[in-house]
This record gives sequence, C-alpha cells and structure tokens, in this order.
Amino acid sequence: MKKHNFSAGPSILPDFTIKNTAEAVLNFAGTGLSLLEVSHRGKEFVAVMDETRALFKEVLNVPAGYEVVFVGGGASLQFCMVPYNLMNKKAAYLITGEWANKAAKEAKLFGEVVEVASSKDKNFNYIPKGWSVPTDADYLHITTNNTIYGTEIKKDLDVNIPLVADASSDIFSRPMDISKYAIVYGGAQKNLAPAGLTFAIVREDVLGKVERPIPTMLNYKTHMEKESMFNTPPVLPVYAALQTLKWLKQNGGLEVMHKRNNEKAELLYNAIDSSKMFKATVNDAEDRSIMNVCFVMKDEYAELEKEFQAFASSKGMVDIKGHRSVGGFRASIYNAMPIESVKALIDVMNEFTKSH
Amino acid sequence: MKKHNFSAGPSILPDFTIKNTAEAVLNFAGTGLSLLEVSHRGKEFVAVMDETRALFKEVLNVPAGYEVVFVGGGASLQFCMVPYNLMNKKAAYLITGEWANKAAKEAKLFGEVVEVASSKDKNFNYIPKGWSVPTDADYLHITTNNTIYGTEIKKDLDVNIPLVADASSDIFSRPMDISKYAIVYGGAQKNLAPAGLTFAIVREDVLGKVERPIPTMLNYKTHMEKESMFNTPPVLPVYAALQTLKWLKQNGGLEVMHKRNNEKAELLYNAIDSSKMFKATVNDAEDRSIMNVCFVMKDEYAELEKEFQAFASSKGMVDIKGHRSVGGFRASIYNAMPIESVKALIDVMNEFTKSH
Repeated sequence: MKKHNFSAGPSILPDFTIKNTAEAVLNFAGTGLSLLEVSHRGKEFVAVMDETRALFKEVLNVPAGYEVVFVGGGASLQFCMVPYNLMNKKAAYLITGEWANKAAKEAKLFGEVVEVASSKDKNFNYIPKGWSVPTDADYLHITTNNTIYGTEIKKDLDVNIPLVADASSDIFSRPMDISKYAIVYGGAQKNLAPAGLTFAIVREDVLGKVERPIPTMLNYKTHMEKESMFNTPPVLPVYAALQTLKWLKQNGGLEVMHKRNNEKAELLYNAIDSSKMFKATVNDAEDRSIMNVCFVMKDEYAELEKEFQAFASSKGMVDIKGHRSVGGFRASIYNAMPIESVKALIDVMNEFTKSH
Repeated sequence: MKKHNFSAGPSILPDFTIKNTAEAVLNFAGTGLSLLEVSHRGKEFVAVMDETRALFKEVLNVPAGYEVVFVGGGASLQFCMVPYNLMNKKAAYLITGEWANKAAKEAKLFGEVVEVASSKDKNFNYIPKGWSVPTDADYLHITTNNTIYGTEIKKDLDVNIPLVADASSDIFSRPMDISKYAIVYGGAQKNLAPAGLTFAIVREDVLGKVERPIPTMLNYKTHMEKESMFNTPPVLPVYAALQTLKWLKQNGGLEVMHKRNNEKAELLYNAIDSSKMFKATVNDAEDRSIMNVCFVMKDEYAELEKEFQAFASSKGMVDIKGHRSVGGFRASIYNAMPIESVKALIDVMNEFTKSH
C-alpha cells in the first residue's frame, strides 16, 4: 500500500534525495567508499559542502553580506546561540507557540526578555497583530511557522531593529526577502534534509557587538570563517541537503514551490472548512500555515477521533495525529508532498464522513 | 581496485553498518518509508534509540550510576559543555595534542586552567609521565588517543579528582573501566558511526555542583532526563551506530576488538621499525596508538615522500597522508579495518622500498 507521509518532522523528502543518498551510502562520488566513511577533508566532500553552501544561497536568493553556516545541535541549540552572539541587555520575542517560548527561555539567561505579544490566550491558534517593537532591544525574535499549532507568519516583517527568525518548518516553502532579517536559522529536517543538520543565515554586520566571551562552537564567526568546516560537519545530512537543493532548482525554485504549497494548503483547508465532521483549529486564513494543517473533530463527532485516526492509518496516512497540546489531527504538507497525497487524505476524510 | 580506507575520521565502518544503513535509507524497519523522513517520535525510531543506548552500555560495560547521551555538535561542542557543567573555579588539563589544547582553551572561559603537563616540546610525540594532579581542581581532562600525533593513553588512569576523557578516536577499541571516569565523551565518527553524532557517558553524581545557569541544550541533565530525545536527534547516525554496536557484539565484543587491534598495530609498527626507509614518529611502544599509526620517511629518503604517497594511492591506499602538523604518513586502523588491509599497506611499503 502506498504510504503518504504527513509527519511534522523529520518529514517527507523528495525521492530524488532519498535515492541519491542511498546510492552514496554504498558508493560516494565514484570513490568506491561509502558516504558514511569518507573524510570530510577529502576533495569529494569539500566539493559537496561548497556546492551546498552556494546552492542554498542561490535557491533562497541570499544577498551579499550574509553567510550560510551548517552546524549540528538542532534549532534548540540556536536558541542559546542567538542571544550569546547578539544580546547585550535586552531582546524582544514574539510568542506564537512552544518553540518561541523555548527560544525566549534561553534568552533570559543572557538579559532582559520583552514579550512583544503572545497568542497563548487562545492556545496559539492565531498570530498576534498590532504589537510594537521596543527600539532599545538588540533584536526581535520570531518563529515564522508554528509546527504544533499550524500558524504561520507568511510575510517578511518590516521592523526597525535586527530581526531574527526561526524558520525551521517553512524555510524553502516560499521566497523570502532575506535582506529583512539579521539571522534566519532552523533545523533542516523539514524541507531540506534528514535530522542532524542545522542552518543559520547570518548577516555579517550584526556580529561582534557583544562583550561576553563566546565559546568557540557557539560563535557564528567560527563557522562562517571556516565555511562550516571548523570541525567535522554532519556529512550525510549535508549531502542529502544538496540533493534537495538540486531538486528544488530543477523543479522551478521557490516561486513554483510556493504556488504548489498554496494549492495544496487551499485544497485541504477548503475540504476541512466545508466538512460537516472536521474543523480547522486556525480560523483566520491569513494566519493559516501552508506547511502544517491542523484540524479537529467538530464537537458532535468528538468521540470518533480515534476511529478516524485508525481508519486513516489503515488507508496509508502516516503521522496525521495532532500534537498533544492541540489534539486532533495535523497534516504536514511540506514541499516534497505531492498534491495527490493531499487528495488521498481528503478522499479518506470524505469516505469516513459518508460512512457516519 | 579494492580500496583500503585509512582515513583518520570519518573513517572505515563495518560493511554490516553500511549495508544495513543503505537499506534503511530506502525502507526503514518495514515502514515503507525512508530512514531520512520518519518521525523520531515514531515507535520504530524510539525503539532504535532505546536499543542503541542499551547496547552502547552493554558493549562498553557501563556501570550503574552512569547515563549515555547522544547529541550533535561534535566533540568540539563538548569542549565547552564539560566546563559549563563541571567547573567551578579550576580545572586541570593534560596537554597531549591539538585537541587537548582546544579543550583547554574553552575551559579558560569558565575559570582557571592548570596544565598538569604537556608534550608540546617534542611535537606531542609522547605521553607525559610523572605529573601530579592539583587536588583542588574540579576535574582532570585527558585526551585518550591523539589522532594527529599517534599517541594514546592505553590504561585507565587512577586520579583522585573526577576524570574527564575525550575518547573520540579510541572508544570501543578496547575494554575501558568506565568507573574510573566522571565523563567520557567523543565524536562517534571513528569506531561507531558516520559524522554528526556525539556521545557522552556521564556519571550522574558529578552534575549539579556548579552555580552558573546552563543553557538547556548544553546541560547534560537535559539529555539524560529525556533519554537523548529532548530535541530531534541525528536519526541516521544513531541508526548506523546501532548497526556497529550489533556488529561489535556479534564479533566478540571489546576483548576481541582489543586483541585484533593490537595485532594490526604490532604488525604495522614492526614493519615500520624494521624498515630501511620509514620510521615511526612515536618511539615509546607504551605511548603508541593502536588506532593511528604515524610514520615518516627517514631523512635519507625524505625526497621520496610525495612519490610514495602517489604510489600508495595508485595501489588503493586511501588517506594515508599524515596531518600537516606531523607530516609523513598516518594509517588509521580502526576496528572495522581488517588485518588484510594492514598487510596490503605493508606490501606496498615493501614493494616501494625494494624499487628504490
């Protein structure tokens, strides 16, 4: 049976990425050796790293004055790296969910944290509007897409202090105006690579403004100066990222991805909105994520939640269970998810609805 | 042509690890999905993580009171995590090479660092003896195997303060008495896994004794409490590590590995010591690494270095070039390296010697 992988992350990757990576595990770049066992200083992998950095910049249209670094540790490690590198006394955080909360928590170890707004009052089912930014803060931190709650800041904000974004779960889903950001970072395990790789796009002129000593590995400059080869990088995830970047370019780049993602999301949200059984957890279309579509049973069908879960699983729908803090269902429809899988999910929802 | 992978790391892994990992990239645990795209919270990967932690402890005979954590970032990130978690005012470091130096450098950000001894006077070609440990230091840090210089501390030291070891390049090469250590950590990309995975074996009672706030991701307790699943772990490297641990167990465990490694090292050192053309860079047999065998051309043959390098490459010897700070050659002969490859290298050395 065909499996449709709706996992929130690690998540669906292009067949192109999977096939090429599997081949490289057996024979990397014609070396006769496995990608798992080659030196990261060998010319073959250095070429992979260089091409990955270059293609990342090209596909995302990263302007001059920015460097892209690849490290380990996940976005969670970035939560402390950002204030370590940027915060003198005060930083501003927009609280749109659990990950934003976690990021703000780390910043509190380094100084004062101002929460410019929070959507906690409604279990983070919307993006706060109309807030203002303290001009004396060193930066404003936002989470562009909130995987758990299915909300997304789909526009690049204009703010008058350095803007830092955790874009773990919507990077490469749409064109971004990187020039509006000081740092964009994220775990790569959604639209780019398997788990174990973290990216940070850093505007060079935002660094060097804090007094504190920074441990070498937590200093963005370390990785920028050594072109992500200060220490042994996560070799296989970098290789897989390169395959995905090639796939993105071959498939028309981010304008095309954005169009496809909008189509997929619109199809699914429309099916939910017109359903007698299901309802979306995010009401405002402007705030609805095009990556993670969260929905629940309407109250009168609440007792059917587990039954639908089992039915969907039996039809090949993988990982559509919602996060425990929201409940219900979550369909993550990242770049690599074909519209056919979204249609398959809608068919399953309709089939289940008709039989009840 | 058969390739013999003498890379210092990432380095040769068992065919068992490579083959099983390649298969899982195409179909993981019968899920019909790739190992690259499955949720780390799915029952199949949770089982992998649990088994990896358990088998790691079993193969290395880790006693009660210790926890094993898997994180990203490499041993280089541990260089700051160790003092962050353990250092109040003073720490002692044994300086046996570049990695020990780098570890000590990070500790200096947190307090006073006492260098108990250094072998820098002879380009780190021996392990210092007869040094004493300051009893008021919070811990002593050693690097058990010095990949660059080919020296190794092959016995588990008895010291009267907590002992911390970077065992990146000799973990699993021999039985270790873990009870003598407070923390043993390392990058996993030598005897265990591909790049992107870091392990730390932590004695639980050494934690919680520092006053400073510790960023969540840098706190060993975070990862111990969440059984290495606080955030998304490096899924594929963990899976590959499990394969290697199974291979280790199936092949008799660390006693057998130790015997094999000693045989391989003895064979190669004997060939070098009896050569008219080559000489080892480490003189004292007690200090010679059984993982990384460093050797150079004798002075009278110095001009043949590049020629031998090319000759060996043409015969399928991969990555035998020595580190730039030592020069000459380095044959890394980790667990997965069969004795036949060591014999092949010796044959190449003999053939080259005879023709000159």
